[in-house]
Amino acid sequence: MEAVDTRKVKESADWLRYLTLMGVERPASGHPGLPLGCADLGVMLFRYFLRGSGAHPEWPNRDRFILSAGHGSMLLYGLGHLFGYPFTLKDLAAFRVLGSKTPGHPEYDLSHGLETTTGPLGQGFANAVGVALSSKMLAARFNKPDLSLFDFRVFTLMGDGCTMEGLTNEAASMAGHLGLDNLVAIYDDNNISIDGHVDITMTENVGARYEALGWHVERVEGSDLAAVAAQLGKLPALAGKPKLLIMKTAIGEGLDKLKGQHKIHGAPAGLDEIAYFVKNSTFAKSFLARYPDATTAEIIKAKLQEELKSGEFTPAPDLKAFLAGKSEAHDPLIAAWTSKLEDYKKKYPVDAALLARFLRPEVTPELRQELLAYAQDADATRKIGASTLQILCKHWPGMVGGSADLVGSTFATVKGDKYVQKGDYAGRNIAFGIREHAMGAVANGLALGKAFIPFTSTFFTFVDYMKPAVRLAALMKLKHLFVFTHDSIYVGEDGPTHQPIEHLGSMRLIPGLHTFRPANDMEMGFSMLHYAEHQGPAVVLGTRQALDASLFKLPGDRAAWYEKFKKGAYALFDTAGKPDLILAGSGSEVSTLVQAKALLEQKGKKVRLVSIPCLELFDEADPAYKASLLPTGVPVYLAEAASHRGFQAFYGRDIHPLAMNRFGESGSYKAVAKHFGFTPEAVAEAAMKL
Amino acid sequence: MEAVDTRKVKESADWLRYLTLMGVERPASGHPGLPLGCADLGVMLFRYFLRGSGAHPEWPNRDRFILSAGHGSMLLYGLGHLFGYPFTLKDLAAFRVLGSKTPGHPEYDLSHGLETTTGPLGQGFANAVGVALSSKMLAARFNKPDLSLFDFRVFTLMGDGCTMEGLTNEAASMAGHLGLDNLVAIYDDNNISIDGHVDITMTENVGARYEALGWHVERVEGSDLAAVAAQLGKLPALAGKPKLLIMKTAIGEGLDKLKGQHKIHGAPAGLDEIAYFVKNSTFAKSFLARYPDATTAEIIKAKLQEELKSGEFTPAPDLKAFLAGKSEAHDPLIAAWTSKLEDYKKKYPVDAALLARFLRPEVTPELRQELLAYAQDADATRKIGASTLQILCKHWPGMVGGSADLVGSTFATVKGDKYVQKGDYAGRNIAFGIREHAMGAVANGLALGKAFIPFTSTFFTFVDYMKPAVRLAALMKLKHLFVFTHDSIYVGEDGPTHQPIEHLGSMRLIPGLHTFRPANDMEMGFSMLHYAEHQGPAVVLGTRQALDASLFKLPGDRAAWYEKFKKGAYALFDTAGKPDLILAGSGSEVSTLVQAKALLEQKGKKVRLVSIPCLELFDEADPAYKASLLPTGVPVYLAEAASHRGFQAFYGRDIHPLAMNRFGESGSYKAVAKHFGFTPEAVAEAAMKL
Repeated sequence: MEAVDTRKVKESADWLRYLTLMGVERPASGHPGLPLGCADLGVMLFRYFLRGSGAHPEWPNRDRFILSAGHGSMLLYGLGHLFGYPFTLKDLAAFRVLGSKTPGHPEYDLSHGLETTTGPLGQGFANAVGVALSSKMLAARFNKPDLSLFDFRVFTLMGDGCTMEGLTNEAASMAGHLGLDNLVAIYDDNNISIDGHVDITMTENVGARYEALGWHVERVEGSDLAAVAAQLGKLPALAGKPKLLIMKTAIGEGLDKLKGQHKIHGAPAGLDEIAYFVKNSTFAKSFLARYPDATTAEIIKAKLQEELKSGEFTPAPDLKAFLAGKSEAHDPLIAAWTSKLEDYKKKYPVDAALLARFLRPEVTPELRQELLAYAQDADATRKIGASTLQILCKHWPGMVGGSADLVGSTFATVKGDKYVQKGDYAGRNIAFGIREHAMGAVANGLALGKAFIPFTSTFFTFVDYMKPAVRLAALMKLKHLFVFTHDSIYVGEDGPTHQPIEHLGSMRLIPGLHTFRPANDMEMGFSMLHYAEHQGPAVVLGTRQALDASLFKLPGDRAAWYEKFKKGAYALFDTAGKPDLILAGSGSEVSTLVQAKALLEQKGKKVRLVSIPCLELFDEADPAYKASLLPTGVPVYLAEAASHRGFQAFYGRDIHPLAMNRFGESGSYKAVAKHFGFTPEAVAEAAMKL
Repeated sequence: MEAVDTRKVKESADWLRYLTLMGVERPASGHPGLPLGCADLGVMLFRYFLRGSGAHPEWPNRDRFILSAGHGSMLLYGLGHLFGYPFTLKDLAAFRVLGSKTPGHPEYDLSHGLETTTGPLGQGFANAVGVALSSKMLAARFNKPDLSLFDFRVFTLMGDGCTMEGLTNEAASMAGHLGLDNLVAIYDDNNISIDGHVDITMTENVGARYEALGWHVERVEGSDLAAVAAQLGKLPALAGKPKLLIMKTAIGEGLDKLKGQHKIHGAPAGLDEIAYFVKNSTFAKSFLARYPDATTAEIIKAKLQEELKSGEFTPAPDLKAFLAGKSEAHDPLIAAWTSKLEDYKKKYPVDAALLARFLRPEVTPELRQELLAYAQDADATRKIGASTLQILCKHWPGMVGGSADLVGSTFATVKGDKYVQKGDYAGRNIAFGIREHAMGAVANGLALGKAFIPFTSTFFTFVDYMKPAVRLAALMKLKHLFVFTHDSIYVGEDGPTHQPIEHLGSMRLIPGLHTFRPANDMEMGFSMLHYAEHQGPAVVLGTRQALDASLFKLPGDRAAWYEKFKKGAYALFDTAGKPDLILAGSGSEVSTLVQAKALLEQKGKKVRLVSIPCLELFDEADPAYKASLLPTGVPVYLAEAASHRGFQAFYGRDIHPLAMNRFGESGSYKAVAKHFGFTPEAVAEAAMKL
């Protein structure tokens, strides 16, 4: 291990501070406080401790750095630039501009060293727990006494916000229980949150809490770089427990009036403060090298003003050799690992082939056929869901997961496999405990490494407890399968707190997520197949109660049925010629409708029965198909034990929506609005066409 | 203080166990495990320590008992019967039957001693924190050195589930910070959760964690009744900190094979086990008194079978005097308090009048007029929302609240007032910290006592972090005002994690909640007025960005405008005669539409502009009004920067939904489905009418 050059660390950190200040100043938007406070830590970590290299950002055994306090994104982008990730100075100068590589909060992109999307507080910390767990689980599966492939560590940086979120406590409790000693969390303890000093709202002993959760805790002054280096060297090596380093820092470090002030958390520092910093920090040398006459505050400000206009930030050529030392030290590690992998392939060909299946799960013809053909007797779809889940688990060895203490009710488990436990990470089942939020976010962490495919499960009504993680799975297009059961009022006796109402619609509204509510065995198999074949997460719902037997073992070619299913809504039972009436519904209500249809037919009505396993897919279907399935002039009776409150006001009305059915983008609000067509001109033009 | 008669406590607890076992056995549904384990604690608490009486369940200074582990509802109903709350044996025998007083999980009903709705884990605990805070806040406002009106304590019972939920940690951190020494939490530490022993998922040191959070922690064996009594006597009196009593119990206490087993958590025990209990517990005496020949297991089972059929559970007349001792001891306390209140009214008439305003907030003509008339220059609606909030705060002294560390952005604060802090509870602002979930649930607790009207606030996208609390506010019809700002993609630079998309629709789908998205100053005032005038919670949204000036200070009679507003959607600008085109939208998109309208008019179009401040109200409006506002044959261009994904597939189609736009009910699933019309017969009949 190379000795830490704290002087060079400080100089590099000061350059990073300047880049942060300028990056935020340009759009007059962003959060400089954390990057200023944690720049030294970041540089030290990246330069000396984080195994990996900007040239190989997707190296499977790289150490991970996860910025849970995602608002400090300039720290990540700046470190990326310093250490050879594909961030140019121009990219930093385009911070928060629509379409840039440097959006307001970090957005998952491994090619740029962005290990996950953060911003919603606590999510990154919980992701880090999942990533650390995936390291342990890979090691348990693939490491050999003579050939160890996986031992990556995870470092995560969190602030007071992450610390206060209950999600973080859930995830920390899990990490302690599982003994994830490859996880180091750094708590940027600056005693400042947006509304002022943290002690107006939090006076708990955070360190003692983490010790109670089974963590090893250390404290350090962030300004004592040698002490920080000593901790970063020591902590990853301590065995048996995850580690928390409580690092006292000053928010806005390096500034004059704003240092230690909450105002610097989320607003630009202003030219006076930047000039003060440039003049009084080690960065002055680089600045003077570029602008030899910049010796007074006035001239510095003028130069900074020019840079803000041009977007041409000052480089620090003196630091080049120091920063490049990172790659020089670590590229050989990566080369050695790659060579080890080749040895592994030769010596352990079966395991190597299995590893390939972990890293590239495929929908083989066999998997497709099993799900296509899946048939069983009438039952509750939660049970059928669990059975089809076993098919996925059989074909995808990387599929792992569990429930929030409800295996006995949702049945979502890898049958016959054991629980992951401290010291034994070979199992495929994870006992998440009654921690839905951590379940969602830790499982997202498992998915981030792309070696595991997680499923998680609880009662559908409790998706509320983990919604932020569902949203992030959709935003990041993670292959996370959500198995939610007890999907409506048919829960019965447990009553209104346990009966989902608004939840079905709420899931449908989330961009990038498919929500399936299958009516029978066939649709359950199809739902799982559609999930398997498509990028991104899916919600698959199951009923508590058994469904109508006539919907099971339907005749006909399954591949043809699947083509219909993929349109999101289709005629499960049709009439010859135009129907008098259409009955439509999803899930368990199809059982009700099939019986209602018989009653209506007794009265001489010709009835089409439309099943809607995925309303979002139907929404996206070809307009001609939609019109043929639900033709003008034929009334549709829709039965769904879920809320349509509000929206149904528009049913049957000539409404042409300009809506946001996708996630947004980082950019000035005017640029964003224009990008999505929310301008008077675009609206007028579209409206003219009606 | 009366000496605790542990023998009588045990006998009463055994009767309660029998009632629980039978109550759950009848519908073959429910959770006997916790009531069996905690029956002794419950009886002891209600008999000796909980100030109050079943005859006066709404006495303002009563101590509260909140069963956070709501699945153990039979404990509450049983204690209610024992201690004179209006639960009869017949009610207990109707457990989980549709329409009974004894639903699956406790549903807020002060007349029955049900202090809050619980079931979703951790909510009750966080409510308890809010209720304890309300006691302190009432004391700070009204107690006099010579006349102390409010000093009620809060006892809450939680299990492993509540303990693991992150929400609980957030709320416990708040309680510790605020020094709520009138709060005693009892942790039913039975080491069992649904999937088995808790140590498969949680091995943290819960006591040490709570100590780190600023709590005083004690441990006790639940079977040592004298020790439990000693703790219940000691803990409430300890000053300065909230208290946690970790009580080791056995789930299913009293049973033969199921004691200590996870199977007894949520399923009936079965006749063999009940017979074992009846034979081997102190309840045998009462049973034999009724059935002198019930000396063998077979005869006991036969008698139990008869009772299950008839619903006539065995009483315990021997315990009558002991149980009645509660009222005898406490009714005089209540009488003394009532007399003290009369003295207070005489001695402190101004404060007494203020107290009346706390307990019965009214929409006075002045309040109505201020909100009706509210006008200001064009601005971001988050700022306008904050201004109109001040009007509510001015008229309602019980209005208190705050944000999740975002006062600087959402502006939701009681201007000029101070923060509630440990030892000084006179302030009206609460620094909830970055704990959205606890904010929602603690504020629900403030609302439960009916003396305070809470508002809470964060960025709209982070409603995801507190959704379960929003849902419960709606389910309980609590007067909780949610002020959410930064309501769409117009958030801009912070990017997709911070731009709400699905959130608007998700709120609309929640039964019992009104979601307002005002377009200008007038609609903001109206939104606050509508909230003030109606039962239950509301969400009021605010934009980050300033809106179009032409929408501000609209002419016309405000009362007439308000009548239109109350229909949820209305023509903000109309044409003479039938329009060619309708532009419709909500919030900031109305700004876009007003400009688009001008462009369309330049092209000769006659355009109606419809503002939709509350789509749910429009959904409920008279069909003739809806048809007149959006007439057939006139296309509607709807602009809303929010997701309509899925639902919009039905726009323009002849859809007649049978949906669940209200919360469900506890009962067998068949009874519930029938109750809401989800039967083939009801569907066929409704469909025939189309």
